[in-house]
Amino acid sequence: MAEKPIRFGIIGCADIARKLSRAITLAPNAELSAVASRSLDKASAFAKANNFPPSAKIYGSYEDLLDDPEIDAVYVPLPTSLHVKWACLVAQKKKHILLEKPVGLNVTELDKIVEACEANGVQIMDGTMWIHNPRTHKMKEFLNDKERFGELKNMHSCFTFAGDEDFLKNDIRVKSDLDALGALGDAGWYGIRSILWAVDYELPKTVTALPGPVLNEAGVILSCGAALHWEDGKVATFHCSFLAHLTMDITAIGTAGTLHLNDFIIPFGEKEASFTTVSKSGFTDLVTGWVPVPSQHTVTTDLPQEACMVTEFARLVGNIKANGAKPDPKWPSISRKTQLILDAVTTSIAQGSKPVEI
Amino acid sequence: MAEKPIRFGIIGCADIARKLSRAITLAPNAELSAVASRSLDKASAFAKANNFPPSAKIYGSYEDLLDDPEIDAVYVPLPTSLHVKWACLVAQKKKHILLEKPVGLNVTELDKIVEACEANGVQIMDGTMWIHNPRTHKMKEFLNDKERFGELKNMHSCFTFAGDEDFLKNDIRVKSDLDALGALGDAGWYGIRSILWAVDYELPKTVTALPGPVLNEAGVILSCGAALHWEDGKVATFHCSFLAHLTMDITAIGTAGTLHLNDFIIPFGEKEASFTTVSKSGFTDLVTGWVPVPSQHTVTTDLPQEACMVTEFARLVGNIKANGAKPDPKWPSISRKTQLILDAVTTSIAQGSKPVEI
Repeated sequence: MAEKPIRFGIIGCADIARKLSRAITLAPNAELSAVASRSLDKASAFAKANNFPPSAKIYGSYEDLLDDPEIDAVYVPLPTSLHVKWACLVAQKKKHILLEKPVGLNVTELDKIVEACEANGVQIMDGTMWIHNPRTHKMKEFLNDKERFGELKNMHSCFTFAGDEDFLKNDIRVKSDLDALGALGDAGWYGIRSILWAVDYELPKTVTALPGPVLNEAGVILSCGAALHWEDGKVATFHCSFLAHLTMDITAIGTAGTLHLNDFIIPFGEKEASFTTVSKSGFTDLVTGWVPVPSQHTVTTDLPQEACMVTEFARLVGNIKANGAKPDPKWPSISRKTQLILDAVTTSIAQGSKPVEI
Repeated sequence: MAEKPIRFGIIGCADIARKLSRAITLAPNAELSAVASRSLDKASAFAKANNFPPSAKIYGSYEDLLDDPEIDAVYVPLPTSLHVKWACLVAQKKKHILLEKPVGLNVTELDKIVEACEANGVQIMDGTMWIHNPRTHKMKEFLNDKERFGELKNMHSCFTFAGDEDFLKNDIRVKSDLDALGALGDAGWYGIRSILWAVDYELPKTVTALPGPVLNEAGVILSCGAALHWEDGKVATFHCSFLAHLTMDITAIGTAGTLHLNDFIIPFGEKEASFTTVSKSGFTDLVTGWVPVPSQHTVTTDLPQEACMVTEFARLVGNIKANGAKPDPKWPSISRKTQLILDAVTTSIAQGSKPVEI
C-alpha cells in the first residue's frame, strides 16, 4: 500500500471504542492518531490501555481533536442523543465519519448528518461490523443464488442478551436522555439490518410491532419485535431484547434453500465463522429423514470483522483523499433505511402495534 | 411384555398411513390387525405394500373395520373434514383413537370427538410424532432447568416446505372441502404445538396473525404466521408455509440459556437427533467471541419417533384394557389447546390481523 494510512481520531472513551482502537491498529490502511475525552486524564488512560502509538495525540475536548488538521477520520462512539451534534461538527471540519449505531434517534437526525456529510464531501459509514465479515459476503452469494436459494420468502432474525441488574439500571442504553431507543436501537438495529441485507435493501411495505413490547419506567424499550411485509409476499420478523439470554440468529428461507446461523453479529470465534445451508431438501420415502441434510460452511478471516470494516472505510476515505473520488452513497443509504424501519417500529409500538406504511 | 399387543386398524390409505403402518409394526406392544379403504382392492394393495402380517384383515369399508370386535384401536389418517364424523364413530364403537392432525376444522369439532371419547371411555391421542422423540424429553429437561435455561422469554418456530405445482393444485391440503386449514393445519400445527410444549401448555393471552398471509383461490391458507403473547411478558412467533423451502426450526430463549434445533418435526436422521444449547454465555473482553460457545447434544433412539408414539398410545390403551385405568386426559387437552390457537389464528387472519383474546 503506497498511500499513507488514514489517520483516525476517536471522540469518547466508550467500551466499544476499545474494540475499535484495536481494529484501527489491525487495519493495514489506518492508524490510531488521536483520542479525545472531556477529561484529559481519561483520554490519556484510554490511549495507554489501548496500545495507542507514542505519536498519538491526547485531547481533553472533542473540539480540539476536530480542529487537528492531521486527523482524516473520526470514530464517534458517543451516546445516540449526541450523534447529530457531533457528527455534523465532524463533517463541517471536513473529517470522514465512522458513526456508531443507531446512527440517530430518528431519521430526521440522520438526514441532518448526511446533509452535512454531503455538503462537506466526507464519507459516512455506520459501525455495523458483521456486514464486513467475509462470511457475510459468502452468505450473500448463497442468498443471491437462484439455484441454491431461489427467492426469499421468509426471514427471522433476533438479537437478545440478558442485561444484569446494573446494566438495566445504569447503562446508557436504558437511559431516555442518552440512548432512548434502548434495545431497539442497540440490538434491534442488527435484526433490521440483517433483514434489509437479505432483501438487497428493498424497503418493506409495512412494519408492524409485535405484541408485548417491554419498556422501562423512563419509556425506553427493553424488549420488542416487529413484522415486516413486502408487496410481493415476503415476510420477516425480528426480536430484540435486553431481557433474554445471548442469542443472535438469522433464518432466511427461500423457495429453494435455507440459510441458518446463530452468531451473525459477533461470530463465536474471531478467526473463522460458519453458517449452514441446505438446498432442495426433501424427505426420505417414508418421511423419516432429510435428503440432503444441511451442510456447514466455514469462512476464515485474517482480520477480525471490525478491522475489515475499518479497512473498507479507510479505503473509501483514501480514494477520496488521493483520487478525488466521491463518497460512496451506499453506506448512508443503508444506514438511513435501517433507521427508517427503526422509526416505524417505534411509531407502531406507540400506536399499539398498528401497521405503519413505509 | 406379558400383555397382548394392542390390535390396530387403519381407516384410509393416505400416504402418512404407510409410515404409521411401519411404526405399528415396530412398536413392541402393537400389531397391524386390519386396514380399510372404500375400495377393497386399494386396501389389499396397501396391506401388501406395507408388510401387514398374513393374519391382518382387509376391509372394503370403514364401517366394517369399526364393527370388528378384534380391533382395539384405530388410526385415522383421513382428511380433516372427515375427522368429526369418523372419530366419533370410532369412539362409539369403543375403540381407541390415534387421530391425525389437525384434529378438526375447529375446536367445536374436536369437542364433539372428545365428548364421544369420554362417553365411551376410550383414549384419544393426536398424531404429533416429534413430541414422543426421546430428544424432545431431553430438550424439555433443558427448558425446565432454572440454572441452565431460566424463564422462557421468547420463542420462534417455523415449519415450511415448498409444495410443487401438483401439490399446490391437487393435494388434499390445499382443498377447501378436505383440509380447509391448509398450511396452518398441516405445518402451523407443529409450530403452535412446539410453543405450547415449551411453555408447559399455558395458553397465551392473545394471538395475532402476522401481516401477509397467503391464501389460494379457494381461501385455503398457503402461508401465514402469528405472534402469541402471555400476560407475564413471554412472546412467541411462528411461521408456516407451503411456499418456502423445507425448514423446521425452534429457537427458545430463556433468561439464562438458549435452545436451537433445525429439524424438530422430522429429525435429519432416524436413529439419532441433536439439539444445541448454550447457557450463561457472554462475550470475550473486547467482544470478539463468545464464552462459552453453544454445545450440541445428540440423543439416540432405537425406535423411530412415530413408533415411540404408537408405543405410548398402546401402553395407555393396554392399561385401560388390562387394569381398567382411565384414559389419560393430557392428550386430548393438548390437542385442544393446539386447535384453540389454530382457531384464533384463522379468526385473526379473517379480521385483518387483529389480536384475538384466548
